[in-house]
Amino acid sequence: MPRYAAEVSYDGGAFRGWQSQPGLATVQGALEDALFALSGERTPVSGAGRTDTGVHARAQVCTLDLPKQWNPPRLRLALNAHLPAGVSVMRAARTPDDFHARFSAVSREYAYFIWNARTIYPMLAPYACWVKDTACDWARAAAACKFLAGTHDFGAFCRAADRPDDAVRTLCDIRLRKRGSLVWLRVRGSGFLTNMVRIILGNLERVAKGAREPEWMQTLLSPGALREKGGRTFPAHGLFLWKVHYEHAPWEQN
Amino acid sequence: MPRYAAEVSYDGGAFRGWQSQPGLATVQGALEDALFALSGERTPVSGAGRTDTGVHARAQVCTLDLPKQWNPPRLRLALNAHLPAGVSVMRAARTPDDFHARFSAVSREYAYFIWNARTIYPMLAPYACWVKDTACDWARAAAACKFLAGTHDFGAFCRAADRPDDAVRTLCDIRLRKRGSLVWLRVRGSGFLTNMVRIILGNLERVAKGAREPEWMQTLLSPGALREKGGRTFPAHGLFLWKVHYEHAPWEQN
Repeated sequence: MPRYAAEVSYDGGAFRGWQSQPGLATVQGALEDALFALSGERTPVSGAGRTDTGVHARAQVCTLDLPKQWNPPRLRLALNAHLPAGVSVMRAARTPDDFHARFSAVSREYAYFIWNARTIYPMLAPYACWVKDTACDWARAAAACKFLAGTHDFGAFCRAADRPDDAVRTLCDIRLRKRGSLVWLRVRGSGFLTNMVRIILGNLERVAKGAREPEWMQTLLSPGALREKGGRTFPAHGLFLWKVHYEHAPWEQN
Repeated sequence: MPRYAAEVSYDGGAFRGWQSQPGLATVQGALEDALFALSGERTPVSGAGRTDTGVHARAQVCTLDLPKQWNPPRLRLALNAHLPAGVSVMRAARTPDDFHARFSAVSREYAYFIWNARTIYPMLAPYACWVKDTACDWARAAAACKFLAGTHDFGAFCRAADRPDDAVRTLCDIRLRKRGSLVWLRVRGSGFLTNMVRIILGNLERVAKGAREPEWMQTLLSPGALREKGGRTFPAHGLFLWKVHYEHAPWEQN
């Protein structure tokens, strides 16, 4: 069966996460329903990464095997005609049979948006975490990011119940920026633990509020550091799966 | 009764326009309900401009007379505590008794957003008009804007049924810009006719598509020009009431 890749954007607020669950509106489920409407066959869709309930995607990637050949732009249009509001296929491409949205991915990039002001625009509220405390010093948090870049044991940056034996991960890029009231984190890494980005934000917030020094990150990165020593887990709705990186992205191959 | 001004932001998709209507969720109605909850009295709210169903506001301004004195930041918080999702008071201020949101306004500024690409992010779809035709030349439309600046008879830029006897209006600033797939118009004027900004977009689109020359705007601005000679009326959901300008804005007075 010919294999295709699709780049999918969705509003996390409209779904109960990525992964198919019986009776719940999920992104994977919506894509599989749309494919069934097109082909009359149940075709599994594999995503590059599961996103939790409420997490958005600018550009999730998934692979799908279809029973017949499709012209990729037509496949995109046909899928969009069958998808509900809140999710859209942005690009589609034919891929080699050994391409896999998840296993071929070299790294994943997330963005997290914070709105740091006493008031928030209602249109922005579903897409950014509102931090009302305007005394935050985000330059301190940006300095703390430097300690997180590289290969470390991120065990204290994982939901405690999901902590794996090997929590060593590599962040190849992590950067916090601010423009007006908007603060955003961009982080790229080979792999992420459960809630890792949202816990990073909670720890950066503690530094921004002056409760901890930027160097405190080193303490949290030491093996055996405990999750409960860190800050809160930031809410899902500020988080975007921004980009999945491949050695050969399907869209550039043809 | 002491008079206050409030700067209000709202998502037009959540309301049936600004103006109170029995049995319908409107922004003015929501504000009057919130004030009633606070003061126990029905207090009328006057807006700087009515926005039609679906039109958003970054910063609508309204005035309200309250039976007692309020500390403005507390008034903002108290109103927000009683307002539904989709509308928020961004600023509040005490004003002189002769300040009026509508009659004291010197000019109003609108923004209109277009997303010009073959696909649109689902998060953006409620806030920008999606124009799929990527052959549009927006530099031509930007050139056409120059003919609209200044004082003209805008009768052909008004919904035909609402055309007033005197349709002369002044646009003191009008500018179209493009960055990637995002195209946006900023227009500031002393007064606007019904659907005027959305009709301007329809006419600019014709120029962008090459169906008309930029100079065609002059024909439409000649007295007696008919609405039906122009382009379509763009949809409400790309339009934002961006800012209301005053000689002395309430927020700057105290």
